[in-house]
Amino acid sequence: MRKVFIIMGSKSDLPVAEKATVLLRKFDINYEISVASAHRTPERVRDIVERSDADVFIAIAGLSAALPGVVAAHTCKPVIGVPVSGGVNLDALLSVVQMPPGIPVAAVGLDRGDNAAILAIEMMSIADPALSAKMKEYRKEMAEKVEADSEQVVSDVGS
Amino acid sequence: MRKVFIIMGSKSDLPVAEKATVLLRKFDINYEISVASAHRTPERVRDIVERSDADVFIAIAGLSAALPGVVAAHTCKPVIGVPVSGGVNLDALLSVVQMPPGIPVAAVGLDRGDNAAILAIEMMSIADPALSAKMKEYRKEMAEKVEADSEQVVSDVGS
Amino acid sequence: MRKVFIIMGSKSDLPVAEKATVLLRKFDINYEISVASAHRTPERVRDIVERSDADVFIAIAGLSAALPGVVAAHTCKPVIGVPVSGGVNLDALLSVVQMPPGIPVAAVGLDRGDNAAILAIEMMSIADPALSAKMKEYRKEMAEKVEADSEQVVSDVGS
Amino acid sequence: MRKVFIIMGSKSDLPVAEKATVLLRKFDINYEISVASAHRTPERVRDIVERSDADVFIAIAGLSAALPGVVAAHTCKPVIGVPVSGGVNLDALLSVVQMPPGIPVAAVGLDRGDNAAILAIEMMSIADPALSAKMKEYRKEMAEKVEADSEQVVSDVGS
Amino acid sequence: MRKVFIIMGSKSDLPVAEKATVLLRKFDINYEISVASAHRTPERVRDIVERSDADVFIAIAGLSAALPGVVAAHTCKPVIGVPVSGGVNLDALLSVVQMPPGIPVAAVGLDRGDNAAILAIEMMSIADPALSAKMKEYRKEMAEKVEADSEQVVSDVGS
Amino acid sequence: MRKVFIIMGSKSDLPVAEKATVLLRKFDINYEISVASAHRTPERVRDIVERSDADVFIAIAGLSAALPGVVAAHTCKPVIGVPVSGGVNLDALLSVVQMPPGIPVAAVGLDRGDNAAILAIEMMSIADPALSAKMKEYRKEMAEKVEADSEQVVSDVGS
Amino acid sequence: MRKVFIIMGSKSDLPVAEKATVLLRKFDINYEISVASAHRTPERVRDIVERSDADVFIAIAGLSAALPGVVAAHTCKPVIGVPVSGGVNLDALLSVVQMPPGIPVAAVGLDRGDNAAILAIEMMSIADPALSAKMKEYRKEMAEKVEADSEQVVSDVGS
Amino acid sequence: MRKVFIIMGSKSDLPVAEKATVLLRKFDINYEISVASAHRTPERVRDIVERSDADVFIAIAGLSAALPGVVAAHTCKPVIGVPVSGGVNLDALLSVVQMPPGIPVAAVGLDRGDNAAILAIEMMSIADPALSAKMKEYRKEMAEKVEADSEQVVSDVGS
Repeated sequence: MRKVFIIMGSKSDLPVAEKATVLLRKFDINYEISVASAHRTPERVRDIVERSDADVFIAIAGLSAALPGVVAAHTCKPVIGVPVSGGVNLDALLSVVQMPPGIPVAAVGLDRGDNAAILAIEMMSIADPALSAKMKEYRKEMAEKVEADSEQVVSDVGS
Repeated sequence: MRKVFIIMGSKSDLPVAEKATVLLRKFDINYEISVASAHRTPERVRDIVERSDADVFIAIAGLSAALPGVVAAHTCKPVIGVPVSGGVNLDALLSVVQMPPGIPVAAVGLDRGDNAAILAIEMMSIADPALSAKMKEYRKEMAEKVEADSEQVVSDVGS
Repeated sequence: MRKVFIIMGSKSDLPVAEKATVLLRKFDINYEISVASAHRTPERVRDIVERSDADVFIAIAGLSAALPGVVAAHTCKPVIGVPVSGGVNLDALLSVVQMPPGIPVAAVGLDRGDNAAILAIEMMSIADPALSAKMKEYRKEMAEKVEADSEQVVSDVGS
Repeated sequence: MRKVFIIMGSKSDLPVAEKATVLLRKFDINYEISVASAHRTPERVRDIVERSDADVFIAIAGLSAALPGVVAAHTCKPVIGVPVSGGVNLDALLSVVQMPPGIPVAAVGLDRGDNAAILAIEMMSIADPALSAKMKEYRKEMAEKVEADSEQVVSDVGS
Repeated sequence: MRKVFIIMGSKSDLPVAEKATVLLRKFDINYEISVASAHRTPERVRDIVERSDADVFIAIAGLSAALPGVVAAHTCKPVIGVPVSGGVNLDALLSVVQMPPGIPVAAVGLDRGDNAAILAIEMMSIADPALSAKMKEYRKEMAEKVEADSEQVVSDVGS
Repeated sequence: MRKVFIIMGSKSDLPVAEKATVLLRKFDINYEISVASAHRTPERVRDIVERSDADVFIAIAGLSAALPGVVAAHTCKPVIGVPVSGGVNLDALLSVVQMPPGIPVAAVGLDRGDNAAILAIEMMSIADPALSAKMKEYRKEMAEKVEADSEQVVSDVGS
Repeated sequence: MRKVFIIMGSKSDLPVAEKATVLLRKFDINYEISVASAHRTPERVRDIVERSDADVFIAIAGLSAALPGVVAAHTCKPVIGVPVSGGVNLDALLSVVQMPPGIPVAAVGLDRGDNAAILAIEMMSIADPALSAKMKEYRKEMAEKVEADSEQVVSDVGS
Repeated sequence: MRKVFIIMGSKSDLPVAEKATVLLRKFDINYEISVASAHRTPERVRDIVERSDADVFIAIAGLSAALPGVVAAHTCKPVIGVPVSGGVNLDALLSVVQMPPGIPVAAVGLDRGDNAAILAIEMMSIADPALSAKMKEYRKEMAEKVEADSEQVVSDVGS
């Protein structure tokens, strides 16, 4: 059974994490969630990462978002980094994506906890055809939602 | 046998792609490589993506780097986007990472074809303990390289 | 009879689209409007563009605004891209304007659905003297509005 | 017979203008070219624009690229603005694209004189089926070039 | 008797203009104020500037703030440009400050109508010792205000 | 007799200063030049500014270009700030232009020593009709240069 | 007995200063606080800095935040600069951090008065083992807070 | 005897480190130097920091420069972060300066190894009057250098 571990740099990142947990539950994926700070509790981050049997890590952090990189430093599992929006925005986004050669983080967009979850599921689908089928179904639902939105816009606005 | 598909938006992105192929060969991973432009040859991109049996896609592009997102639109497999540096830099980087909800791209840093390959290998290692072991070995080599560099610096500069 | 097709990446872009429709109605231009996402419904975008008999396309999208470029990839008609403001702003703007050689998008400013409509009308006026005359009239109205605003400011503030 | 007028803010913008003239000649489009500065010769800009019988204007300028907007202020014909790269880059790009409501400029990317020409041809193709057919042919050539590039990459790099 | 002419690109820039008029009245400087748009009413801008007997111009505008540069193009009097804050901010600021060689604009900070007025007064003080003395007095008032603020902070917060 | 004082933050700013001295000599304006650093020699800056009988100061500096603001803090004469380009560019430009209320600096573009000189001459022309006439002449020369450039471009490139 | 001097550029910076005073009181560190503007009251800044017996200075300022650099220019004591957030944000941050060689400022993040205080305490702890022990205790408290937050998140959200 | 520890993220950062060692030797300060990567060798970083008896750490790194923050996470000693310039520049600078509350890094400018050394010496001077006197001497030398530069400029350029 596959598992995702979600680490937040601070309790205030919970709304972004919940965008991920909603999707993981929808796909029946096991997950654990924890608060651990790369700067205030570096040992805690290392312990969590080294002891975990998760297949994919989602690390969520703002400002000079070092957490995804520090998680990646302690594991060879895929690490997905979610920059959290705030004052400057570019600080978090660049900190997550501009990793040195050898230790990648898979960056998603600002506050995109949902895309982090989908990416994690896609990774775990590589060797899991049932999960892959579920994801294709989810894509279809999204496309149908776009068509329904379009019909509503046309009926509201005319053309 | 797992496989990675590398799509470049233009032939000029080859040096970035080769950072990836060097690593994929080192890890004995099958790969295919192709040039296809999201804007000049959209049908070609779709055909390549839909027909491919690859487990992970690496999409490399500059400017308003739409290619990774367009590849992601045609597959549920993980897509790793590599922005290519150029005049503004932020255009490529933001285009790759700031995807809408539902269709993530796993962004790596500017010109980081190497990190795209490592991320792809990490994804494929989820269900492949042998590949996972190889990656741990590679990490160890990197760490030993850092220690060797440090010794050389100290012997060069003193302290 | 000329026609404009307005494609929005998401229903939430409607306020920007309505800045365009207000002007198109004022100029008695036919238009169609639809929601279609470059990433969630790539086939739908292609079908809409290829089947449409529109003379000009207006594509509206936020984040890594790939929609205008994808529309341009499927047609040789002029495509006007409207970046939609949001968290980073530069992501949408740069994605629309920084197109690769060969497939241009005519970018207008952030949220400028109105300017997209005027630009579309200017394009269709090339071969339509009556429409061109209407546009000159509209310019005159704008100029008179500026003069009226100036008189009010002087009467409010003195000098 | 349709005509394009190319205005450069300075003689040093000629290489960008020539990317446009190459394409206009390829499509047998008439064009005129002139140097006129929005800041040093504002009357000259106005005279050129008001006296010209061109169908589309291409305005090329760097720094706080006011020229495209000033040209747009003197005509109701479509104006395509080409920002020229330099020290800050964002100054030229933002000056061209961020126009006030009512007076749009169709911005293309930094130094993209070629895309300005293609956009102008697309605009003039609205009422000219022969020109439209030529453009479709050009697109096909571009797509074939991508495929040829791809074959060369595969034969060079293997897979 | 010296005079300052304040040109706003839009009526909505009035709050920034009023920061200037407050100071000009305090220094008993004549001023005129007007709305004129570089893009919607280019002739009006030229007429105002060429007919005015003002000694200094203050031009206030947002977005791709072309107004200060266009005013400068029509006069050899000093032109002070005030960028107005908005969506991107850098667009207005860079458009005002990054002028081509030969036609300078004296840029002040975002929304700094007050600093534009002070700068205008400083310029007119070059040949006017009485005005210069008034400005020195104003500086002293500002300094005393800082000291008073400091005393209040210390009494509020202790140390 | 009017005078301009040019202060550079470092000897390496001399090429930017020389763009100003060339123009000041052309207009027969007296000037003094000196190196003084806001951070390394704050007393020297204050002494130079307070003892000088100059009518306008031009302050040239790079990085967090504090020099123009510090000069402005010690005088009520107009201060023109020239940011010097380097690694980040925006640091110098923003430091010069974003002054607090009450102490303006007249910012010109990156490396624009020439525009600083022209702006200084414009300021001194307020009460000096002869100098004003010379500036009008200079503008005419610039415009003629644009026309000559245009003729050369047309004869080189054809149309 | 060690002492910290906090200088604010304006009374409005008090909320940022109070983040520092809260921590200094917690650590029983003496401090003085004052308002002094690098641009409006340069002599006052110099007098405060030269007469003070403080061991560390904390300088807080927004816009083109020259205050930290000006304080550093008048002392060889460590100066910690706190940029204050506002319209552009990058202006204050770059002004504080991009100092010329020879006169460093220790920059902390936007509005981070608290981190300025901690940094000051760390500096004074170099020769004060008791203070150093207190800081280690404070770090432990922070880490325990992270663990408590994590437990609460898990109990709220489950896993 | 005080000591400084210099940690570089990569051997390629040596030129920036040497700007620091030159100054530390000039001030007769003990130092150690080492290469250790926050991402490739996190344990090595922790061991170096925890075992060291240094009074101040200087951490030098590029890209998403996590090293200074990670060093700060493992010590209560002052940590000075030096961002290293590269493709984007802002990534390194923002990663160093935008630290979360509680764990400050004292950021200096891009590539400013020299300023890191001076800041370290200033910190150690708090309790070391002899070192403080040396620093005052160094400041005087810098000021004399400015005056000498100024004389040379005047003799070269005249005035």
